[in-house]
Amino acid sequence: MEIKFTPISTVGEFGLIDKFSTAASHFSNPVIVQGIGDDAATIKPSQGKLTVVTTDILIQGIHFDLSYTSMSHLGRKSAAANLSDIAAMSALPTAAFVSLGIHSNLSVEMIGEFYSSLTDELGKHHCVIAGGDTSASPIGFVVNLTLLGEVEPDRRTTRNGAVAGDIVCVTGDLGRAHAGLKILQREKNRYIEAGQPADFTPNFEGYDDALQKHLLPAARVEFAREITDKIRVHSMIDISDGLLSDMLHICKASGISVEIEEELIPIDPITRRIAEGLGENPLDYALYGGEDFELAFTIAEDDFKKLYSLEGNVRAIGRVRSGSPEVSVKRLDGKTDKFTDFPSYQHFVKGDPS
Amino acid sequence: MEIKFTPISTVGEFGLIDKFSTAASHFSNPVIVQGIGDDAATIKPSQGKLTVVTTDILIQGIHFDLSYTSMSHLGRKSAAANLSDIAAMSALPTAAFVSLGIHSNLSVEMIGEFYSSLTDELGKHHCVIAGGDTSASPIGFVVNLTLLGEVEPDRRTTRNGAVAGDIVCVTGDLGRAHAGLKILQREKNRYIEAGQPADFTPNFEGYDDALQKHLLPAARVEFAREITDKIRVHSMIDISDGLLSDMLHICKASGISVEIEEELIPIDPITRRIAEGLGENPLDYALYGGEDFELAFTIAEDDFKKLYSLEGNVRAIGRVRSGSPEVSVKRLDGKTDKFTDFPSYQHFVKGDPS
Repeated sequence: MEIKFTPISTVGEFGLIDKFSTAASHFSNPVIVQGIGDDAATIKPSQGKLTVVTTDILIQGIHFDLSYTSMSHLGRKSAAANLSDIAAMSALPTAAFVSLGIHSNLSVEMIGEFYSSLTDELGKHHCVIAGGDTSASPIGFVVNLTLLGEVEPDRRTTRNGAVAGDIVCVTGDLGRAHAGLKILQREKNRYIEAGQPADFTPNFEGYDDALQKHLLPAARVEFAREITDKIRVHSMIDISDGLLSDMLHICKASGISVEIEEELIPIDPITRRIAEGLGENPLDYALYGGEDFELAFTIAEDDFKKLYSLEGNVRAIGRVRSGSPEVSVKRLDGKTDKFTDFPSYQHFVKGDPS
Repeated sequence: MEIKFTPISTVGEFGLIDKFSTAASHFSNPVIVQGIGDDAATIKPSQGKLTVVTTDILIQGIHFDLSYTSMSHLGRKSAAANLSDIAAMSALPTAAFVSLGIHSNLSVEMIGEFYSSLTDELGKHHCVIAGGDTSASPIGFVVNLTLLGEVEPDRRTTRNGAVAGDIVCVTGDLGRAHAGLKILQREKNRYIEAGQPADFTPNFEGYDDALQKHLLPAARVEFAREITDKIRVHSMIDISDGLLSDMLHICKASGISVEIEEELIPIDPITRRIAEGLGENPLDYALYGGEDFELAFTIAEDDFKKLYSLEGNVRAIGRVRSGSPEVSVKRLDGKTDKFTDFPSYQHFVKGDPS
């Protein structure tokens, strides 16, 4: 296969928009009356449903490092980050709006790779790119994605409905995306320390499940619908900032506290192996590591058994208690750690692209 | 008044979001069920109306130059750019979503200034900030704004309805925002050439109307509604890329051509004075100069007289003809220039922040 590098300047803004319109036209959603091609897109909301809207900005050097993130991984991740917010409302996504700031060192092919991965991942959930904006960027690559979705009023899940006595549940396993990131960072450092040789081979063997979770995350859109199809969920949030930070959002919004037990937190063996290999605590990955794009939610105790048929992908990890907003974690050694302020921001975001 | 400079790092992301939520809470719109504070905002669409959505990204060094654009001007301009797209659909804005990429050399006060100007300008049109995202930016200031609006299906205006025989109309006057930009650039160059002295006084006297149009643009939201209240508009677009470029969009979407007469194009005396003072052609400002945020639209000939009561703010500047997409401009000297490709992109965007 011939590898092409076509400078953006040869096609211009309108040329890019034409290419994107063609890619987007492979998918459709019945609510979209008119997508790309006018001053604004037009949507005909489904009768009786609520519209939900989320937006996320990703900036090169802050949210991603192009030295180990391909453009197609980045497209996938942008989609997952926003889809996960829609999933947390128990909504189904409908229309996406994507703004790109494009540095001149990127090629038409690279943008095409990003765009087609983004379009495909959204398309899996019947979500269509209905508009956007493109601009030059004097700096790095910038992506802003806005997603619209729809939900029946009685199925909408928010952060503020947790009540004392609820069971706290999470989907999937936690900390694995962070473990994957750690391996990528380790290999990047090895490459730099080795003097960046042309024949450098990164050692990724045996880490597939962690790398996959970091580079190709999938949002729990349909799974959230399965859950709210079976039971009444009291509160829900997507775990993109790490379990502690996101549970604290539920505590503050609902005016309750939450007790989590370390032994109940689902941590995959690969996450443990990576953390321990790096001399770190796997529990920290699960509590602080963001971007697993799993969901945390609280439900009445009696409802938990109704989730058994969901193939083990839901775990109970703790309880909601009355009291001022606080997340406490009962450790295996019997000690209890208490958190009343958002920890992951300081912990991971500053100067640590993830 | 004491001038404060509080580094962003002292308040963090959630601190900023709290400040913004408070500012946004001064305004309300009945469709917003829940704004800032959950994974996604929730909107209850008005029955029988269509939702329109537009998004725009502004990047420092491409769309604005902070050496002569204050943060409050920038907030106003971000609002106007998006409101103008909503106006072009004859819709009323409802909810806004703002993503900011913030460089560490910006203070909390500067972001506050931007945000309060943005909030106020949107609030004038009953549009409320219902969500967003904030991130560090290793480079310059980045703003992405997504706006939702609503319109009755029979009042929605698009680019594709122009028919042969229509009169082409524009609101306001054209090229004045570009004239204002030229004065700002002239004074910046004088300042640099003078060695950037501390006591430099820019010469802005007599240019108020042009500077105002560039720095404090206002979108024609209510005016578009007045027009569609009186008559059936066949096609409409906002003139943010310059008249030629935007008329060509109508030509391509509607499959028609457009004839414009130079003598009918509304150009303010201040625009003429500035262009001529710089040895340039005022007509070029009107044809290529973007960001006037006026509207161009086409209507049946008989309907034009129904717009007389709109206080002279609407001018007829040409005709729609059958034929392949093309904008022709009949010059005062009798010559006719024809355009079939987008001219303003090459003309202004590249390396020329506006």
